[in-house]
Amino acid sequence: MRKVKVYIAMSLDGFIASNDGGVDWLKGDGSDPNNMGSYPHFISEVDTVILGYKTYEQITTQLAKDNWPYAEQTTYVITSKNLVDTNNIKFSNDLINLITNLKQEEGKTIWICGGASIVRQLLNSHLVDELCVSIIPTVLGSGISLFKELETNLNLHLISSENYNGITDLNYRVDK
Amino acid sequence: MRKVKVYIAMSLDGFIASNDGGVDWLKGDGSDPNNMGSYPHFISEVDTVILGYKTYEQITTQLAKDNWPYAEQTTYVITSKNLVDTNNIKFSNDLINLITNLKQEEGKTIWICGGASIVRQLLNSHLVDELCVSIIPTVLGSGISLFKELETNLNLHLISSENYNGITDLNYRVDK
Repeated sequence: MRKVKVYIAMSLDGFIASNDGGVDWLKGDGSDPNNMGSYPHFISEVDTVILGYKTYEQITTQLAKDNWPYAEQTTYVITSKNLVDTNNIKFSNDLINLITNLKQEEGKTIWICGGASIVRQLLNSHLVDELCVSIIPTVLGSGISLFKELETNLNLHLISSENYNGITDLNYRVDK
Repeated sequence: MRKVKVYIAMSLDGFIASNDGGVDWLKGDGSDPNNMGSYPHFISEVDTVILGYKTYEQITTQLAKDNWPYAEQTTYVITSKNLVDTNNIKFSNDLINLITNLKQEEGKTIWICGGASIVRQLLNSHLVDELCVSIIPTVLGSGISLFKELETNLNLHLISSENYNGITDLNYRVDK
């Protein structure tokens, strides 16, 4: 069965977005800006990307506005809006069924890219196989919490870790 | 000036204690139980330990009930209770002044051991020089949050990291 993997950055105090919407803190200390940590290997194993609508909007308007970064993957945007699919961007309003069905199909890793609500629904439903959190060296104090109060607890197994730009990628398998 | 260092364990979702008070999760995957990560080196540089009263009680009644673990250090317990100092355990009800004064004295590292309220007061007052968080490979879902909503934001610099028992010690300098 295909792997479902959360791969996401958060501050040491657990926020994936600051209240002001700024993204500068995500680059860490910037000492080695071309070093992307475990991301290049990770993305080479991904053929499907899952995004919430706000995350999708943030990518298209702020993070990568001119170049859709996941051209080599099929992206599913979770939204109740009635939008028209393109060749490689599809819209769905039923996250749990979508993931359950995609897992049955042949293919490579399914990346749960965010936001927090998408991640939490899938963790609560025990549909996540691996979890990689890039710990950004900052304490934001407030923002959008990744885990908030999850409705379940999870045992994790550390697979690997990697440091770059003061960031630490912690790569875990989720116990079933 | 002496170093003030927070050294504390938390779950990946930021809790330092579970709601049921259990401490079993703190040992990680237990694959190498004698490996204490960065602790032995850390404690060799500490001569002063700062504890909240609940943390003090937890140590004396649960974690190390027969053997006071910080016999080689001077411990200050922060409490409004009127308790009698012993040779190496002293009681204080004025955290900020205590730390400000201790920093002026000659000595080794001052360890801010917990709990969360003590850590947050000192982070908010920008009195912490270093922060080492042992990320335990578990998501608890609820409990006592280390950072909760801090009243300030902090830039951190990763000094080192170390993996053992599925736990990752992330050792940071706090920007002033």
